[in-house]
Amino acid sequence: MRYCLGVDVGGTKILGAVVDEEGTIVSKTRVPTDRSEGLDALPEAIDLFLAEADKPIEAIGLAVAAFVENHSGRITFGTNLAFSNPDIGADIAREYGHPVVVENDANAAAWGENRFGAGKGARHMLMLTVGTGIGGGVISHGRLYRGSRGYAGEFGHIPVAVEGPPCNCGSRGCLETLASGRALARMAQERGAGHPESEVMRLADGNIEAVTGALVGKAADVRDPFALELLWELGTWLGVGLTGLANSFDPEVIVVGGGVLEEGEAVLGAAREEMNERFRGRVAPPRVVSASLGNDAGVVGVAQLSLDAVDGLEGSEMGHGR
Amino acid sequence: MRYCLGVDVGGTKILGAVVDEEGTIVSKTRVPTDRSEGLDALPEAIDLFLAEADKPIEAIGLAVAAFVENHSGRITFGTNLAFSNPDIGADIAREYGHPVVVENDANAAAWGENRFGAGKGARHMLMLTVGTGIGGGVISHGRLYRGSRGYAGEFGHIPVAVEGPPCNCGSRGCLETLASGRALARMAQERGAGHPESEVMRLADGNIEAVTGALVGKAADVRDPFALELLWELGTWLGVGLTGLANSFDPEVIVVGGGVLEEGEAVLGAAREEMNERFRGRVAPPRVVSASLGNDAGVVGVAQLSLDAVDGLEGSEMGHGR
Repeated sequence: MRYCLGVDVGGTKILGAVVDEEGTIVSKTRVPTDRSEGLDALPEAIDLFLAEADKPIEAIGLAVAAFVENHSGRITFGTNLAFSNPDIGADIAREYGHPVVVENDANAAAWGENRFGAGKGARHMLMLTVGTGIGGGVISHGRLYRGSRGYAGEFGHIPVAVEGPPCNCGSRGCLETLASGRALARMAQERGAGHPESEVMRLADGNIEAVTGALVGKAADVRDPFALELLWELGTWLGVGLTGLANSFDPEVIVVGGGVLEEGEAVLGAAREEMNERFRGRVAPPRVVSASLGNDAGVVGVAQLSLDAVDGLEGSEMGHGR
Repeated sequence: MRYCLGVDVGGTKILGAVVDEEGTIVSKTRVPTDRSEGLDALPEAIDLFLAEADKPIEAIGLAVAAFVENHSGRITFGTNLAFSNPDIGADIAREYGHPVVVENDANAAAWGENRFGAGKGARHMLMLTVGTGIGGGVISHGRLYRGSRGYAGEFGHIPVAVEGPPCNCGSRGCLETLASGRALARMAQERGAGHPESEVMRLADGNIEAVTGALVGKAADVRDPFALELLWELGTWLGVGLTGLANSFDPEVIVVGGGVLEEGEAVLGAAREEMNERFRGRVAPPRVVSASLGNDAGVVGVAQLSLDAVDGLEGSEMGHGR
């Protein structure tokens, strides 16, 4: 069996896992990080992961919540991730003597779900990660599609409401301003005062500023009508975005994961209904399914990409081994 | 030199051209058709084209304004094209003894512009054809990307205004309800009464029902402020759609053609401004350029696809030679 190290660097944690060539996680470690630290906490975390790994690894894959330039692996832009060294992948390769692949985290998750998860075997697949924001990845002809610069799959920034809420990216009405965890919290806060008896407000002790997306999810678990209404609205906006994507890519399947999808059916049910409504009379919309690898999709996917790069596989034209 | 016959079947005309392997049109014939006839007028037109061709052709490519099923070449759905025989491609191949490729017309035009036109050499390119409606095509890794069923690139049906005008497809607020020739005519008719002194209304002899998209174009040629305002608005909506596409595909270049683009800079200027506005602070949006092959893009593109199919080229994984 062959092994590699997959590392997923988010805004508040670094997850490291030794993964075998069949996508099975052999060991996993989670390191919490300070938001201001971000990617700069990576070298220390890698020391730890490598010390704990009891398998010989062939390569390291880094999934990062940022824009990664195609071919070079340079990190060029991150809305939610602090970093001071755009070439950290190259530095780590040099320091540890392993080939390193750097990949956008949503692309890595898409590759993981396509190789080993809910989209296994699909030649044309999209993945959306609906968490605080929205990330995306594209599988085309069985390969990861990164576009000309590496910035494909930025589905969070598809405009769905031209005059909609301002987005962190500088635009307005992007999909993630209406269908992400952050959007869920905002909608709940805007309307909470009108639902004083709701479970959402009860869980927040009546303090509207304490309402979060996760709290709305909890309230939905006990069928709180206000929470379910918010999730339905979020799912409807998601369905609007997915309609555009389905018309653009015609994928076999769209895989949706991320924290907000813990309320999977409430959200995906609404999204499917919106898509059916908008596709009526033409062709059937593609299947929309829940992701199956959960938070491990990124480490598993990027580990596999690093192994593909070692093998010089076409599938990793998109990777950038060094 | 090698030759093939490219045929472009639209709602009101069939265009046939003998094209050489370098994309040069050797001869061209245009046959007007009755709207109710549509694709059923094709066999007679092909008889004519073949009788007129004075070169030996190797294959026939058919570009049709309809959904074409991947691999099979079956025509499955057409909003703007009447047809009674979905397998007309196979029948023509049998009758004339030439390999036949059937392709969606916007996909064919995208391939033409990518091989020989404004997108020449781009590995990742999108094309939009903005005419009565909006068609689209995707080039990915230097190949025509058709999606899982053949329905990729339906950019006219990306939702950009959830409660927008009803679309022929059954949905609402699709890009083509706000940024096509048909949309231009509707906007002009809705607002014409408020601009009685405009060149638009003068050209229509004050008869609001006589206002068409083409007439708005004519008025724009003499810098009519009302016409320019309408084209700017159309271009702005186009820019909203292109922003979503750029975030989804990250193409090197977006090529825009079609009848409405005869007012090219008025429309593309607005589209670029909207994209710049929505991309600020992140990365540069892709280049947006006018198509260069005009109405010939479809015949040239589909002729080339048929030649690729004869050669069994990867580029025509998407074609379906018989």
